[in-house]
Amino acid sequence: MELARTPEPPYYAVVFTSVLSLDDEGYHEAADRMFELVRGTPGFLGFDSVRDEDRVGITVAYFASEEAISVWREQPEHVVTRGNGRERWYDAFEVRVARVERAYRKGRG
Amino acid sequence: MELARTPEPPYYAVVFTSVLSLDDEGYHEAADRMFELVRGTPGFLGFDSVRDEDRVGITVAYFASEEAISVWREQPEHVVTRGNGRERWYDAFEVRVARVERAYRKGRG
Repeated sequence: MELARTPEPPYYAVVFTSVLSLDDEGYHEAADRMFELVRGTPGFLGFDSVRDEDRVGITVAYFASEEAISVWREQPEHVVTRGNGRERWYDAFEVRVARVERAYRKGRG
Repeated sequence: MELARTPEPPYYAVVFTSVLSLDDEGYHEAADRMFELVRGTPGFLGFDSVRDEDRVGITVAYFASEEAISVWREQPEHVVTRGNGRERWYDAFEVRVARVERAYRKGRG
């Protein structure tokens, strides 16, 4: 597995934590579609995403600017899918928008 | 499972993404100890942590201030354990320090 490769800060991180409902019909296809779709957003820098066997997930998506986040938030198919997530797929979630100020890493150049 | 409960922004998030090495002897005990220890840090607000079967993990720890992050970073036992992580337990990791500017949620009051 590879971690996201992001440029030097500053940039933005959208931290999405969630608990997936047992009623997750259609969720995985929709999630895959969103990962595909976000790649086409200008200013999108990458993401890391993990879900464990307790159905808790964390996805962190990185964007160059607040403007890039706005474009993604208003993407029409994303708006519809987000509504499904809120209504059906998630028992709980939280979205945090944060400005990355510094970063350190190990394991690649 | 419960997600972290954090106050209204602004506050700080330390986003730690990692790939755990196959040589993880001592890792899990050390991780549990760090989760216990961080709770005693003044200004620590909570954390979310997930690792999947591909050994990729994301932990997001929330702090009230940069000062609280500094205190945690310099905690002596944490300094030692971080060295072990860097040298032995992680094939790759990245730490991002970010200022949370806004947040939305579903699933609790």
